[in-house]
Amino acid sequence: MAERSLLNQLVDAFRCLPGVGPKSAQRMAFHLLDRNREGGRHLASVLAAAMERIKHCKRCRTLSEHELCGLCANPSRDGSLLCVIEHPSEIVAIEQATDFRGLYFMLGGRLSPLDGIGPEELGLNLLDERLKEGEIKELILAISPTVEGSATSHYIADIASRYQVRTTRIAHGVPLGGELEYVDGGTLAHAFAGRQSVEN
Amino acid sequence: MAERSLLNQLVDAFRCLPGVGPKSAQRMAFHLLDRNREGGRHLASVLAAAMERIKHCKRCRTLSEHELCGLCANPSRDGSLLCVIEHPSEIVAIEQATDFRGLYFMLGGRLSPLDGIGPEELGLNLLDERLKEGEIKELILAISPTVEGSATSHYIADIASRYQVRTTRIAHGVPLGGELEYVDGGTLAHAFAGRQSVEN
Repeated sequence: MAERSLLNQLVDAFRCLPGVGPKSAQRMAFHLLDRNREGGRHLASVLAAAMERIKHCKRCRTLSEHELCGLCANPSRDGSLLCVIEHPSEIVAIEQATDFRGLYFMLGGRLSPLDGIGPEELGLNLLDERLKEGEIKELILAISPTVEGSATSHYIADIASRYQVRTTRIAHGVPLGGELEYVDGGTLAHAFAGRQSVEN
Repeated sequence: MAERSLLNQLVDAFRCLPGVGPKSAQRMAFHLLDRNREGGRHLASVLAAAMERIKHCKRCRTLSEHELCGLCANPSRDGSLLCVIEHPSEIVAIEQATDFRGLYFMLGGRLSPLDGIGPEELGLNLLDERLKEGEIKELILAISPTVEGSATSHYIADIASRYQVRTTRIAHGVPLGGELEYVDGGTLAHAFAGRQSVEN
């Protein structure tokens, strides 16, 4: 076999998936070839279509195959609440777990000047325009409280204060049912620093 | 979102891969869309090509994009040794770990009349013809020693004996470095039943 065989190319191509090493990639290739060609054909065609057609919503920047994503286009969502998130997958998690009925704004990362990620890259000019429109009453920041995340939150809160929009951030702390001894040190320190008074 | 979105279709399509549940499928979809569209496009095109073009070698029945697989077409392989295996992935394992330089014959399963898998489905008529040609001097069975696997081995050994071809099977037993207390009962019982005399 002088040239690379198609089978080896397929095994290598599966390696682009997260968490897939050489053994899993080989297992995937053989599984589809041996037992599920129809599934493999379907995956190939949906994958090709998705890579071409899924772009970013022009209003909230999340992934969408339409100009306006399903959430932004939905008139029954509460346009006075805007939740700022880092990645599209977080919308799925919030929609499944909470009763949040507002809209979202997807940053796609955190401010990190050294990596060339500035306000432009996160679409903060777009967010500025959204806030200027005046419809938004509360901006909810669901950004992880790392150094870069905090800097991003501060930057966004600054913009919001210019338009007198109330800014909140979701609570970070010990997860419900989390055993204190197994919670990581950073979270525990954060939970102590952010302790709240108990009201009777 | 009345119709199923392309994103949801993509997440579902990834579920056809072995070991991929809803969370991993979502992670794969977002990873490719967010960070590696080029890899996703490449996977889609290689996958589509592989599903169409990879067939079975007409001589040894393993997966191959050509009529004759690379091993069968290689004149430097020893045509007097034929190793019978169940699945194409086993060839990769044998080639990597052993110095076997003969050829292979891929069954694609084991005899299981209740599931409609008879000698025809395993290509045993093709194997019969191979043995009849007279080139093969030793048939090495690398079939797992389950009930169905043993029946398959016996069936093949019967055919081989008709053409006076020597049949061997690879050794099954406790793995090298395997702790006896952690080896499964079936393997241990097999290792005891198949004990060999020690020669000084």
